[in-house]
Amino acid sequence: MNDAEDIFMHESHPAETHNGPHGYISNKDAYLKRLRRIEGQARGLQGMVTDDKYCIDILTQISAMTSALESVALALLDDHLNHCVLHAAVAGGDEAEAKLREASAAIARLVRS
Amino acid sequence: MNDAEDIFMHESHPAETHNGPHGYISNKDAYLKRLRRIEGQARGLQGMVTDDKYCIDILTQISAMTSALESVALALLDDHLNHCVLHAAVAGGDEAEAKLREASAAIARLVRS
Amino acid sequence: MNDAEDIFMHESHPAETHNGPHGYISNKDAYLKRLRRIEGQARGLQGMVTDDKYCIDILTQISAMTSALESVALALLDDHLNHCVLHAAVAGGDEAEAKLREASAAIARLVRS
Amino acid sequence: MNDAEDIFMHESHPAETHNGPHGYISNKDAYLKRLRRIEGQARGLQGMVTDDKYCIDILTQISAMTSALESVALALLDDHLNHCVLHAAVAGGDEAEAKLREASAAIARLVRS
Repeated sequence: MNDAEDIFMHESHPAETHNGPHGYISNKDAYLKRLRRIEGQARGLQGMVTDDKYCIDILTQISAMTSALESVALALLDDHLNHCVLHAAVAGGDEAEAKLREASAAIARLVRS
Repeated sequence: MNDAEDIFMHESHPAETHNGPHGYISNKDAYLKRLRRIEGQARGLQGMVTDDKYCIDILTQISAMTSALESVALALLDDHLNHCVLHAAVAGGDEAEAKLREASAAIARLVRS
Repeated sequence: MNDAEDIFMHESHPAETHNGPHGYISNKDAYLKRLRRIEGQARGLQGMVTDDKYCIDILTQISAMTSALESVALALLDDHLNHCVLHAAVAGGDEAEAKLREASAAIARLVRS
Repeated sequence: MNDAEDIFMHESHPAETHNGPHGYISNKDAYLKRLRRIEGQARGLQGMVTDDKYCIDILTQISAMTSALESVALALLDDHLNHCVLHAAVAGGDEAEAKLREASAAIARLVRS
């Protein structure tokens, strides 16, 4: 279903700090597009403050931006579980355990943030 | 960048119903500074995706950015309660009721987002 | 179990500074009904763990219970703003300021919990 | 006050629908203890409403209870990832994919609730 796995084999991968491919690489453009929109929302908020827009309207925009950020986080986490964590699980051992502990800590930060 | 900005210029803006300045006006620079930092975080996230940074590190940054956004929202809401809502409460009547209903709805969106 | 309950009976209770009944008193039965349902959910969760129910199903129930709790909190906060805070705002002075500061702190705890 | 606890004693496990043990089984007593405390918090809230306690104090208790619930959810999720999901990942195939999709959906519900 995704051809991205080939990419992961390249020796020249700049950030090969774990034993498997990064999960999000195949969707890089989609993530960048979503993050650019979020950056635009942050700029839009500055415009609202500069123009003395109504507080409640600004709060509505902040809620929308928070939801957009959360969606990106959930998508990244899903990719991460399906790639890095899955690979580590198959490999087994300490690496699997470490990846799972790391993923749980990231989930806790998301739930509490 | 978006045409929505034009809407805000109308003199007859429906939200312009309170008897005083927007609560956040006095802290405008502080809010702008915080929002610029948040915009920088959104740009930083794009850099992390472009450079294939590790998913978990990206998620950590997203959690930090979500917390920063929430703090701005809570500060704005506090200013709003202390200015617009307080003015409306003193004035009394339908306006007070409307402002409180509006504030409660904004709080609900924040809690659920 | 805690002696704090006695405190609440004293007429001179420091929180008893608003000019009327607690905002939620009129809806007491409705709140009690919702809280009993939430207590039932907590008991249901214990049953699920005892019966070795599937983790994901337990998590789904916890999410539902968290949402139910949040709804009660938002309803209470709305009542509080419309009664205690409104009264204090009309009375003005330090009391108004104190009530608003207290409400903002409660909102912050809800958003971050 | 509740007879539900009797239910928990039944030896006959009714819902063994996956290929491995439930992750939380080893910590069953710890989970039950935490859930009983949460049930107690729900009862305490009813007492506070009955006794007309101050809204803000009730909200503080609700925030504490929400945090307690979230901690149980995060612990269960961690156990689930380390057992069910890990087993499925090693087994591979559709089962692994299904378990990961299911876990991601549960995480999304937690983050958004």
